Amino acid sequence: MKRREFLAAGAAAAAVAMTNIELKAEVTDSTWDGKSANQTAKARLCLGSQLGIIPGNSVEEKFAKMKAWGIEAVEFGRDVEDPERAKYYKKLLDDTGLIPSAVCWGSHGGDLMSFDKDRKQRGTDALKRALEGAGIIGCTGVIYVPAFNGQSPLTNQEMRKMLLDDFPALADFAADCGTHVTFEPLNRGEAYFLRQVADGAAIARDINERSEKKCGMSVMGDFYHMSIEETDMMGAFISGGKLLTHVHLAGGVSDPRRTIPGQNKSRFVEGFRGLKYIGYTGPCSFECGVRGDREVEIPKALEFLKKEYELAVI
Amino acid sequence: MKRREFLAAGAAAAAVAMTNIELKAEVTDSTWDGKSANQTAKARLCLGSQLGIIPGNSVEEKFAKMKAWGIEAVEFGRDVEDPERAKYYKKLLDDTGLIPSAVCWGSHGGDLMSFDKDRKQRGTDALKRALEGAGIIGCTGVIYVPAFNGQSPLTNQEMRKMLLDDFPALADFAADCGTHVTFEPLNRGEAYFLRQVADGAAIARDINERSEKKCGMSVMGDFYHMSIEETDMMGAFISGGKLLTHVHLAGGVSDPRRTIPGQNKSRFVEGFRGLKYIGYTGPCSFECGVRGDREVEIPKALEFLKKEYELAVI
Repeated sequence: MKRREFLAAGAAAAAVAMTNIELKAEVTDSTWDGKSANQTAKARLCLGSQLGIIPGNSVEEKFAKMKAWGIEAVEFGRDVEDPERAKYYKKLLDDTGLIPSAVCWGSHGGDLMSFDKDRKQRGTDALKRALEGAGIIGCTGVIYVPAFNGQSPLTNQEMRKMLLDDFPALADFAADCGTHVTFEPLNRGEAYFLRQVADGAAIARDINERSEKKCGMSVMGDFYHMSIEETDMMGAFISGGKLLTHVHLAGGVSDPRRTIPGQNKSRFVEGFRGLKYIGYTGPCSFECGVRGDREVEIPKALEFLKKEYELAVI
Repeated sequence: MKRREFLAAGAAAAAVAMTNIELKAEVTDSTWDGKSANQTAKARLCLGSQLGIIPGNSVEEKFAKMKAWGIEAVEFGRDVEDPERAKYYKKLLDDTGLIPSAVCWGSHGGDLMSFDKDRKQRGTDALKRALEGAGIIGCTGVIYVPAFNGQSPLTNQEMRKMLLDDFPALADFAADCGTHVTFEPLNRGEAYFLRQVADGAAIARDINERSEKKCGMSVMGDFYHMSIEETDMMGAFISGGKLLTHVHLAGGVSDPRRTIPGQNKSRFVEGFRGLKYIGYTGPCSFECGVRGDREVEIPKALEFLKKEYELAVI
């Protein structure tokens, strides 16, 4: 149908075309009355890290190192699926005064985006274990990727439909655990589906609207993937808005790729502007490589990021 | 591949995965030095309309009515493919002092997203005629939709690839005409591919980077489609940024759907914040229905929009 014909068909055609769309409720917002929506006064930079890059011969040593460097938030891995391990981490956090951020979980081989019932069940069970572990620790969310390239034959719209069908229940399970399922948009070299923060936020919103508790899904932004997929980091984070619960820190595609902030040409000011504008107080967590002596380079990166945050003026 | 395995495979795997990605050049931006990126001082509201809803028995009468109401910019239709018609419009603009905005063109039946060479050629020829007409008039761009639902069997990533392969030449053709090919993101009920401003902006950016003149593609935002697909209008327009050359004004999905601004519950403050932040001075053009007496309702809508714009504080 040509555009003119489409428009000429008018309201009737539009009504037909819209019948199977989930309609977003119209939003009302008190900031629509001449007040600024700028939430910078509420925002703060909360630096965190995955455990892998932190020097130390034990988890205890790594926690102590993070504490000494002023890294506030710990990002965990899939071992939190074991509740005993989760309790152990929880105690370690309580002992050191560090706070939990997210669980870096992934796609479980794309199992949840499969038409094979057994495979889907395995993935679902594992995600539920991770959500329970995240709940024990008090994590903000379990980072979930629907499928890396090659893990699912589904098209984008089939994958979106499967998420909308299956995830309201998982969102409510996450909410009951006091945490979120957190979409991580990746770059197209890793996943063709879900590549921008605005897309992840919209899918999370639509699943939340279909769920009972309306709050179990969230989205994150990863500076590395964003450097490839986004035209504007500030715009992307504003689109994340209240659905944004996690951020990964890493240099972008410039050489050397995905190194710790400050070790390549990537800047963070534009993205930090967005995080400030939405009043983001959640964790910004290292997921990156480090060149050279970590004892020297990680503290340098922390200082670099604090300066970038200061430079981020709305 | 599980996330952990993926990360464990490290730089080598990443390098392989990235080989067929168009890498965005790292951006440098003078506003990364503690200066605000807020361009509100440069922004202004330029109201426009398609001709269809304007009362009048002739194009001349419609132009005169727009002028009298303070509507500045005229949006044209596919008849500009005829160069004589385009010249006629150009003269009418010169005579009245109105300015041109975009050409509302569409998908040409999805012909450009076809593997059938003849069909693709027909679509390409028609788009080129529209770009030439837009050039004669001085239009900001020709609004292009790759495919409405049902017009192309291609998946999202096949369509993105076809755009990246075919459109650098069309972008340069547009630039030679002094105009743009302008992507219009639609809602999923009309098109499953290209539904968010950030996505359209990223595809436009990637095509521009592959083209010679680097400037022939742009993106637009339509408040109606955005009310369904975007989580935040401000974030979406900031993601459009310098690539944004057109805006469609219409109420969102609240009842009555897609009516003129002010005739349903939709607000425009959040979106206007984004347009102000990026210093947008381009046209915001009615593409909507009107209930009741157009002589009364259109001036009311213009006043409503001016007030919404005033309320848009960064």
